[in-house]
Amino acid sequence: MRPSSSASDPGLFDEILARGPVRTAVGDRSWLTALLEVEVALARVQADVGLIAPDAAAAIAAAAHPDRFDIGALGRAAAGPGNPVLPLVEALRAAVPAAAAGSVHKGATSQDVVDTAAMLVAHRALGPLLADLAGAADAAAGLARRYRDAPMAGRTLLQRAEPVTIGFTAAGWLAGLDEAAGLLAGVRDTRLAVQLGGSVGTLAAYGDDGPALPGRLAERLGLAAAPLPWHTNRVRIGELAGALGTAAGAIGKVARDVTLLAQSEVAEVAEGRPGRSSAMPHKRNPVAAVSAIACAAQAPGLVATLLTAMVQEYGRAAGAWHAEWRPLRELLTAVGAAAAWLRDCLTGLRVDEAAAAAKLGDADVTAHVRAAARLVDLVLADRGRP
Amino acid sequence: MRPSSSASDPGLFDEILARGPVRTAVGDRSWLTALLEVEVALARVQADVGLIAPDAAAAIAAAAHPDRFDIGALGRAAAGPGNPVLPLVEALRAAVPAAAAGSVHKGATSQDVVDTAAMLVAHRALGPLLADLAGAADAAAGLARRYRDAPMAGRTLLQRAEPVTIGFTAAGWLAGLDEAAGLLAGVRDTRLAVQLGGSVGTLAAYGDDGPALPGRLAERLGLAAAPLPWHTNRVRIGELAGALGTAAGAIGKVARDVTLLAQSEVAEVAEGRPGRSSAMPHKRNPVAAVSAIACAAQAPGLVATLLTAMVQEYGRAAGAWHAEWRPLRELLTAVGAAAAWLRDCLTGLRVDEAAAAAKLGDADVTAHVRAAARLVDLVLADRGRP
Amino acid sequence: MRPSSSASDPGLFDEILARGPVRTAVGDRSWLTALLEVEVALARVQADVGLIAPDAAAAIAAAAHPDRFDIGALGRAAAGPGNPVLPLVEALRAAVPAAAAGSVHKGATSQDVVDTAAMLVAHRALGPLLADLAGAADAAAGLARRYRDAPMAGRTLLQRAEPVTIGFTAAGWLAGLDEAAGLLAGVRDTRLAVQLGGSVGTLAAYGDDGPALPGRLAERLGLAAAPLPWHTNRVRIGELAGALGTAAGAIGKVARDVTLLAQSEVAEVAEGRPGRSSAMPHKRNPVAAVSAIACAAQAPGLVATLLTAMVQEYGRAAGAWHAEWRPLRELLTAVGAAAAWLRDCLTGLRVDEAAAAAKLGDADVTAHVRAAARLVDLVLADRGRP
Amino acid sequence: MRPSSSASDPGLFDEILARGPVRTAVGDRSWLTALLEVEVALARVQADVGLIAPDAAAAIAAAAHPDRFDIGALGRAAAGPGNPVLPLVEALRAAVPAAAAGSVHKGATSQDVVDTAAMLVAHRALGPLLADLAGAADAAAGLARRYRDAPMAGRTLLQRAEPVTIGFTAAGWLAGLDEAAGLLAGVRDTRLAVQLGGSVGTLAAYGDDGPALPGRLAERLGLAAAPLPWHTNRVRIGELAGALGTAAGAIGKVARDVTLLAQSEVAEVAEGRPGRSSAMPHKRNPVAAVSAIACAAQAPGLVATLLTAMVQEYGRAAGAWHAEWRPLRELLTAVGAAAAWLRDCLTGLRVDEAAAAAKLGDADVTAHVRAAARLVDLVLADRGRP
Repeated sequence: MRPSSSASDPGLFDEILARGPVRTAVGDRSWLTALLEVEVALARVQADVGLIAPDAAAAIAAAAHPDRFDIGALGRAAAGPGNPVLPLVEALRAAVPAAAAGSVHKGATSQDVVDTAAMLVAHRALGPLLADLAGAADAAAGLARRYRDAPMAGRTLLQRAEPVTIGFTAAGWLAGLDEAAGLLAGVRDTRLAVQLGGSVGTLAAYGDDGPALPGRLAERLGLAAAPLPWHTNRVRIGELAGALGTAAGAIGKVARDVTLLAQSEVAEVAEGRPGRSSAMPHKRNPVAAVSAIACAAQAPGLVATLLTAMVQEYGRAAGAWHAEWRPLRELLTAVGAAAAWLRDCLTGLRVDEAAAAAKLGDADVTAHVRAAARLVDLVLADRGRP
Repeated sequence: MRPSSSASDPGLFDEILARGPVRTAVGDRSWLTALLEVEVALARVQADVGLIAPDAAAAIAAAAHPDRFDIGALGRAAAGPGNPVLPLVEALRAAVPAAAAGSVHKGATSQDVVDTAAMLVAHRALGPLLADLAGAADAAAGLARRYRDAPMAGRTLLQRAEPVTIGFTAAGWLAGLDEAAGLLAGVRDTRLAVQLGGSVGTLAAYGDDGPALPGRLAERLGLAAAPLPWHTNRVRIGELAGALGTAAGAIGKVARDVTLLAQSEVAEVAEGRPGRSSAMPHKRNPVAAVSAIACAAQAPGLVATLLTAMVQEYGRAAGAWHAEWRPLRELLTAVGAAAAWLRDCLTGLRVDEAAAAAKLGDADVTAHVRAAARLVDLVLADRGRP
Repeated sequence: MRPSSSASDPGLFDEILARGPVRTAVGDRSWLTALLEVEVALARVQADVGLIAPDAAAAIAAAAHPDRFDIGALGRAAAGPGNPVLPLVEALRAAVPAAAAGSVHKGATSQDVVDTAAMLVAHRALGPLLADLAGAADAAAGLARRYRDAPMAGRTLLQRAEPVTIGFTAAGWLAGLDEAAGLLAGVRDTRLAVQLGGSVGTLAAYGDDGPALPGRLAERLGLAAAPLPWHTNRVRIGELAGALGTAAGAIGKVARDVTLLAQSEVAEVAEGRPGRSSAMPHKRNPVAAVSAIACAAQAPGLVATLLTAMVQEYGRAAGAWHAEWRPLRELLTAVGAAAAWLRDCLTGLRVDEAAAAAKLGDADVTAHVRAAARLVDLVLADRGRP
Repeated sequence: MRPSSSASDPGLFDEILARGPVRTAVGDRSWLTALLEVEVALARVQADVGLIAPDAAAAIAAAAHPDRFDIGALGRAAAGPGNPVLPLVEALRAAVPAAAAGSVHKGATSQDVVDTAAMLVAHRALGPLLADLAGAADAAAGLARRYRDAPMAGRTLLQRAEPVTIGFTAAGWLAGLDEAAGLLAGVRDTRLAVQLGGSVGTLAAYGDDGPALPGRLAERLGLAAAPLPWHTNRVRIGELAGALGTAAGAIGKVARDVTLLAQSEVAEVAEGRPGRSSAMPHKRNPVAAVSAIACAAQAPGLVATLLTAMVQEYGRAAGAWHAEWRPLRELLTAVGAAAAWLRDCLTGLRVDEAAAAAKLGDADVTAHVRAAARLVDLVLADRGRP
């Protein structure tokens, strides 16, 4: 093993707690890209309505390539004003012809750019996150279909109860995952909006063209429009946080069941690629489910941090806004990682029908199986993929 | 002052931290009523499909009056099985003719009844909660209209910035409150569902009539139907929690602004009924806003508790389900109280236009006022009440 | 069952989620008593140094009986000033001879009285809480001793691993409970301090006698003294919250293990008084452990709320102080209930040595048992009760 | 600005939300170093008691240099077993002579190494964290001394109240910071313990030498010893989390006061290096205080996550242990950053005595100043630096 880590290498714990594509989607490079895209789009829409020269907008677009900016230097300079936009704007102004410099970031405030970039980053991170969630749900659907009639013990309060089927258990997982995905997709599609208001939110710097700009910006960036700047109205952030936290709960529930069903004493499922142990090489740990639980467990505290930060002063908060940046990134990462792990877990899940059936002894379970199976059908039909 | 407290009297802190109608709506009497309604509705729908005799359902309905049950005794007996349904069912069976006893709670599990009752309680608590939120929003709309053109300093990071108008500030409050109310109303109207599954969720005990019962129950109780029992799929609870937490944030933001604007050094607003101080009788504390902040501050931790509790084992959780009862009640109460306080606060808010204008000196603020005012119009128009 | 609830009756969920003596210790009556004790002690110490007449102090002490005050009326009046002290002071002034009225609450501010009463309430609630925690620890110690050499499977990641002993498992529980109890007792004995500062914390109203009063008050009330008023320095609250949250975690861990060991498929322990099920009368649910988990799960969110509330403005916070009252009470109640449940659970725990041993088959476990047993001895010796 | 970021460069937000030396102290390189130190110390103590050959221990020590290991590769391989120790052990075995390979990690389990390394990392991170906290406290002490007699308005509920002094306000800050630092230092010095137990915690693999090893390991590593392995007894983690959360609250309180005192309408303090604004170049934002608030706001949610994770199954948790890694690192980073910002803020704080005095008008404040000043003296004397 040689010391050859590159910038995109994971840290020691990243492939466990920040697994999957979301880590990169919310990384610094993605953020820088998004910040630049917002500045470019801002210039474009101003050129469209005649507030700046088309040439200036073109020059800004040409200059705004993330490779031309030094994240470390921007990060160091960000501490001065308290956010990375001011140094980025200065660097962008230095990178365009002098005549275009004044058109960079014109009329905007730092929060316009950070907030809009945050929404872009979130929107893009939710793509792979929802794909992994859908992958996990599809796997659950597959299990529900395949084991529709395979009897297993129902269990309540960890005590054995009346029979259900393996497919019925999987259908319950499926329902939760689909509901959570629907909620998240709804927030993504309708609530992630551009932010544009200028220094105090009135769009005053844009004169009569002001009110038209947010809508145009939204169209360019593929985000929703907001009737009013939301610099200190953080309902959108709260909704996103709530939906992510709910998705984490839905994922954690499934992963918890897998760890329980994989217990040595239950042994009705096993992961396809179980983990090894340093002290006990023979062990087969349900690492994917365990890791999904660990990732999902990050969410509630992060949601609480974001909800607490909704109490923002006046037109721009003295701390609460800045307090959002870390937990928003971490929350997307954690839920994304949980979804990626769960997809792995369910996709490769091995089911031991015989072991499940054996626990029921000789009892006639026909009626129970029939009852369970018809609910499986209902859930699968409801999903539109019978 | 005499020692004459009645059962409905508030505790020492209730009129501050549990103010308003939600406290009663989530109280033990409301819960008992809801639990009984669920048992009655369950009997009715079974009678409708012929699973029990119509007479039995009628007898159950006749017996199920909350006055006939002793909350204290039920509470004491609840510790045995770990929930209050089993003793309630025993009491209800004792209260009906012997022939009907077997029809009480037939085929259901305790969680069916507790969960459905919880949704009923939440649904009913959200009525007055949303009314208070709407009252606060209406008051904000009134301020937005009235002070549409009244200049005040914009403020960012607690520093004075470019001018806005008082109405613009109020329009920002209004937008947040309306968005939060819309979110909450959506959850109430579409996501609060009945729970019915029987011991392990398969509806097996109801035979062929099983799958039809949840929908019938939902119709009777005015709740949504769920395609599958959600005993351990708590996405609905997560959504409700997220929406309540978001509403708390939106309320807290407005209340924080009021406390800042009411500062001695700013003095641009004052509450209509300010509080007194035991040490300084001359002081005029913005007690409604302060209390709204305190109530709203309860929410994030409670949301985190509910999201954490989503990780529920198998078909009925060993603790996580029980862990929901307190925070769900507390969260509704806290957000309800925050809404009630904010409504009081904004309804009676006194605005000192001259004090606000004086801070701007002799500067020409015409353009700023115009810009702000046109966004006020937008928000009010968006609301459909110009 | 008749409707005969008295004031001290539990609510529907109280015997589950607010079980045990702490509920009463933090109840309104206890709070009223504590508030009055503070007012009496404040008068006494002022009489001691000659700031008020001894007769006035005696009159105040005579009048300050909780039976003479109406909690409901105080609660309703508390909403005006935003805390219950001002109406209580008015009632107390009305209850003493006119000459003594001016000596009631002299020089103090409402927060002095609420904070000191809160510390008294917490101190007294920690008594039974620590007793229940000690009871649970004693039961764990008993199990550690009794099953010191009884082999059972070790388990990691819910997979069977090398053998341990039942006593070793119990010794692990014991260590956590004892550590948590030590932490909590330390906070109780050294960090619960009186609050006295007057309107802005300078003790100015007491003239030259000011600095001596907090120490005298502390002595009278059996609390710690603070060198400076801590109206907005809430480190003490943070420490108390952290210790309670840690105790909840220690309790939850043990209860979780019990639910796992009580699984139908493991069946190495069973509760002495298991719960019944409404749908499956034959089931034996580990209700005490399940309830302990549910109670312990309340803590993290409440701790977060209290830690968030530490950010308090200037000399008295505009909301964050008020925000402490509910979670402090709830946190004590929840941890107290968790401890009470765990004590019940462990005290009556039935261990099936044969079932535990059977899982190990014919393997020679001598070395493992010896290793485990010697650590059991260490823990028991460390505890001073071999 | 050129794209020249090196591995140690900050990210876009790091100099704001992860400011100061703690970020590096908890970084992957520090973790890798700590993991290797634990493996080396484990070999050394085994050599000391004769369990492995001294040559093997020497070979392990020689090989265990962090430069020789590839963090990215370890991180990728960590996903297999679910933690980075197994691949690290394999790499270390490959790096030593074949004869020594079997002595690497002998008798230990992955959690022994991760937990002990976590405690080392935390111990070392607390050094600079406490230094920054002390720096902030020293600055507060300097303000308390210098402005001991400088009158300013007391303020409660954001309303002007009786006079205090600027030094009195600073003394309140000082008291909170010192208390929090004392709490944290106590946890660091007595509660950060080594972890050693082997696969199921019994130290069985070490035979008769087992019980002596943890103490020897503790001595070598400068950590505390634990009487029993604490694999699933996380009271130590809970205590550390609680102390860090409390420190965050103490810091946040001071920073909040600074932002309030720096308001345009109050203007009694200003930061030495205020931040600029992209939209309003003339503004002077209190960026250090604002950032300290943002950093401190991260803590409560992270504490809640760590407390929730205390509920760990059996001898090694299925997810809850893994769930600690991220929030422990983040919590240290956030509180470290908050302390670094507050030190900057208070060290450079400019006080406008005249502005503060002017608010009091012509009132005679002698008695108030005297009362405040004597409490300042008390706090400074209590600190031992008059």
